[in-house]
Amino acid sequence: MNPFEGNLYLTGFMGTGKSTLAQALGQALRRSVVDMDAELTRHFGAPIAEVFREQGEGVFREAESALLGRLSRRQRLVVACGGGVPVDPANRALMRRSGRIVALLGDPAALRARLDGAAIAARPLWGDAAAVQALWSARQAAYADHDLGLDAVGMELSAKVEAVLSHLLPDQRLPVVLEGRESPVLATVAAPSALRAPAAGRRVALLTDGHVAARHLARYREALPGAVEIVVPPGEASKSLRRAEAVYQALLAARLERRDLLVALGGGVVTDIGGFVAATWKRGMDCILVSTSLLGCVDAAVGGKSAVNIAGSKNQVGLFTTPRQVILDLAALSTLPGSARREGLIEAYKTGLALRPELAAFIETRRRPLLAGDLPDVAAVAIASAAAKGAVVTEDFREMGLRRVLNLGHTYGHAVEGWHRCRVSHGRCVAVGLRVSLELSRRRGLIDEALAERAAATLRALSPRRCALPTADEAWPLMLHDKKAAAGRLVFVLLAGLGRHICVDDVTPEELALAVEAVQRREDES
Amino acid sequence: MNPFEGNLYLTGFMGTGKSTLAQALGQALRRSVVDMDAELTRHFGAPIAEVFREQGEGVFREAESALLGRLSRRQRLVVACGGGVPVDPANRALMRRSGRIVALLGDPAALRARLDGAAIAARPLWGDAAAVQALWSARQAAYADHDLGLDAVGMELSAKVEAVLSHLLPDQRLPVVLEGRESPVLATVAAPSALRAPAAGRRVALLTDGHVAARHLARYREALPGAVEIVVPPGEASKSLRRAEAVYQALLAARLERRDLLVALGGGVVTDIGGFVAATWKRGMDCILVSTSLLGCVDAAVGGKSAVNIAGSKNQVGLFTTPRQVILDLAALSTLPGSARREGLIEAYKTGLALRPELAAFIETRRRPLLAGDLPDVAAVAIASAAAKGAVVTEDFREMGLRRVLNLGHTYGHAVEGWHRCRVSHGRCVAVGLRVSLELSRRRGLIDEALAERAAATLRALSPRRCALPTADEAWPLMLHDKKAAAGRLVFVLLAGLGRHICVDDVTPEELALAVEAVQRREDES
Repeated sequence: MNPFEGNLYLTGFMGTGKSTLAQALGQALRRSVVDMDAELTRHFGAPIAEVFREQGEGVFREAESALLGRLSRRQRLVVACGGGVPVDPANRALMRRSGRIVALLGDPAALRARLDGAAIAARPLWGDAAAVQALWSARQAAYADHDLGLDAVGMELSAKVEAVLSHLLPDQRLPVVLEGRESPVLATVAAPSALRAPAAGRRVALLTDGHVAARHLARYREALPGAVEIVVPPGEASKSLRRAEAVYQALLAARLERRDLLVALGGGVVTDIGGFVAATWKRGMDCILVSTSLLGCVDAAVGGKSAVNIAGSKNQVGLFTTPRQVILDLAALSTLPGSARREGLIEAYKTGLALRPELAAFIETRRRPLLAGDLPDVAAVAIASAAAKGAVVTEDFREMGLRRVLNLGHTYGHAVEGWHRCRVSHGRCVAVGLRVSLELSRRRGLIDEALAERAAATLRALSPRRCALPTADEAWPLMLHDKKAAAGRLVFVLLAGLGRHICVDDVTPEELALAVEAVQRREDES
Repeated sequence: MNPFEGNLYLTGFMGTGKSTLAQALGQALRRSVVDMDAELTRHFGAPIAEVFREQGEGVFREAESALLGRLSRRQRLVVACGGGVPVDPANRALMRRSGRIVALLGDPAALRARLDGAAIAARPLWGDAAAVQALWSARQAAYADHDLGLDAVGMELSAKVEAVLSHLLPDQRLPVVLEGRESPVLATVAAPSALRAPAAGRRVALLTDGHVAARHLARYREALPGAVEIVVPPGEASKSLRRAEAVYQALLAARLERRDLLVALGGGVVTDIGGFVAATWKRGMDCILVSTSLLGCVDAAVGGKSAVNIAGSKNQVGLFTTPRQVILDLAALSTLPGSARREGLIEAYKTGLALRPELAAFIETRRRPLLAGDLPDVAAVAIASAAAKGAVVTEDFREMGLRRVLNLGHTYGHAVEGWHRCRVSHGRCVAVGLRVSLELSRRRGLIDEALAERAAATLRALSPRRCALPTADEAWPLMLHDKKAAAGRLVFVLLAGLGRHICVDDVTPEELALAVEAVQRREDES
């Protein structure tokens, strides 16, 4: 796990849109943006042209290089370079050492043609075509030295952003096989484009919820013209048989057949109901799940579980399905609210603890950028978690053995959720459940104090809001009710070291009580 | 296909309950009952004791043998023999030639102990214990000559009936494998007993409908003590998501887990919804389908299709499931109303036409006893149809090819059903659909006139009520709506000879119109 931590330096001639692209990339990557020309204008307290005129280009270039030096010692910045920055080979070397260079390319005539009058007036040099051409020609070699070159004139802003994201986060294909059928996971920043091929030549229903539709539907409409759009209300309440019936009615009205395609676009609620509806429409239509949430990428979308709720009980109804493909929409991950990010990080940390020490370590060490939503880091967590889960479900699709590892923290966690009648989020409940599992593991001598402490601290950081805990006696009957309980036996997943788990069915209410009380005590002390 | 057509002769000493068992067997087999002593009393116009006294035993035995001779030239009778009938070896030879002998066995002391005062008073011989013992001893050899001997004293009447039915209709196991998983069909007259082993050691939910519950629940309660009973209203309306939710709620309340067992007991409605609910409860619980209707045995229960309806459209929601076992409750088939029997016979005839010439011939030649409900004949049809369907679905579970043969008659048939808004029964619609398919086949020269005529006549006999037919233009859009339509192409299954089928997708509305008009003309002429 080694996502890009360096700076992105945008270079290019004046008028290529470096500042605009930098802002857009800052938003897409959730990274800070520095506009060098604006910084230097502030530094000199005067417009750049005035500095040139009154103090000379040398003074300006010196300040520019000094600023670049300071920026190069920081990380994760999106830097809109001044037009002349890459001319100095020393500057380019500095940029290369501390990040990557994205050059915006275009010839002066084309660049000038797309500027409006005000923009031209702001840069008097545009008035002298010969001078512009000469300057441009002189800088050609400097601009040609880049990691990624983009057509400044021919590409839409969104396409430029996608190209840069694709460069930083190239497509990754994770093989997943569910009961002999391939159900691969594709992690991509260009999810809409990835749907073009499977959608070709058949009707498509695009199922999503109101929140996701507002944020992402436009991107998908372009890739799926003519798709029947089915928008359900956001939230867990949509995972009902009643809502499923409304979706079926929409499919009926649109006359979708078995060979057509249902695309479920959203978080766990949408992919759960979409998987269920597709698997049960005319005894099974083709389905692609597109996850726009971190929690979905980490958990719900991978592994073929579909579900709806019935009154009073979550996920009781559903089936194991094999979607044709699961797509992790990495570009959507930077649009998540912080609370949704936390939910995903908690489940990812669970996966790391149980299966992938390097994922757990990554979340521990990069907690801050992850909580801030840094896209490369968040995407790395999404992909590593999906890969880990994909490997588990390939081995044990129907949860007869290994797959149970994913329930680490969920036995008590589900009881917390039920006890709070689902008014406390799943992630917060799982965070508490994980802490109880860690405590059980520590008390049995399965893990050492250091791991127990580090994991508990990480979980407190990922889920800082406190929540009341049911006692062992209150939790016990709720846990017995869970669909994972077998013949009245409660199975707990415990850690036997980082990345190693064991399933036990001999935890007593007394043992659980001690662990719950220990976690409660820490809560009270904090 | 060679079900028992002979007579059943019940022999045994006086007081063994021959007349009572004969009546019960007549009802269970739907065959006529003859009580020889009653016949002879009518013949002589006097009680048998009086005939003995006044005309001598010789005269009586001669008349008795003559009556037996007449009965032996008939078929399908249940005959309660007089106590002395088997004493004459010639009588026994006649019984053997024309049927089977079931002897009711018990020693005189035990027989006398279970008679009440009135019964003893009616047969003065019981007063003379020594005479009774002597008579019984003298007849031992005669009673010992039987095909099946039953303990007259120790067995309940229902157990005796089941024993005789088991003798005539021994259990048959039909191997069915759905996607690599065994889903065998067991045809048995002792369905409740067959559930004991799979139900052992786990909780059981018994799903059925009001009609089936009234007729059969008592038999099953005994075999499944403690089962949670879930009774839905009879009829197609129960195949709804709303009703499914009520069933889920019952499973939730009873805390049924994945490893527990759902038994769906009934006709197609119950097995369809039961299969759906079991496959979607906690992502799949164990399920056994028990079919109590001929249509269920022939079609719905075999092959793993489950379904519920949504408003305005039948069977649009569902999935392919693999029940652990399918049980054909042969004993229940004699309790069906005539209309339900017709429905099953029409689908069975379809199976015969498309796949099994001997089944088609059997239905043609035994139409009368089948329509009258003769159990051995009906059971033979159920078993042969289930075997044919089981072989098809083993080869093509997900209806990618061969399984389409089962849609013979259903393309236009479903349109008839939709056009009548399901107010005309499925069977009647399929009968019409089959006639149209036969007509299409005849017009293409695929089958000869003789087969076309014979099949049409059989279908008219199985479905004598006329129903209005949608024109080809009215039917076409309804057919395109069917879930079996692919990419706007209509697939018709046609016959290419008895037991041979072809699928075609080039039937035009004009060609269909000619076939529909021809069938309509025959209807008008008849």
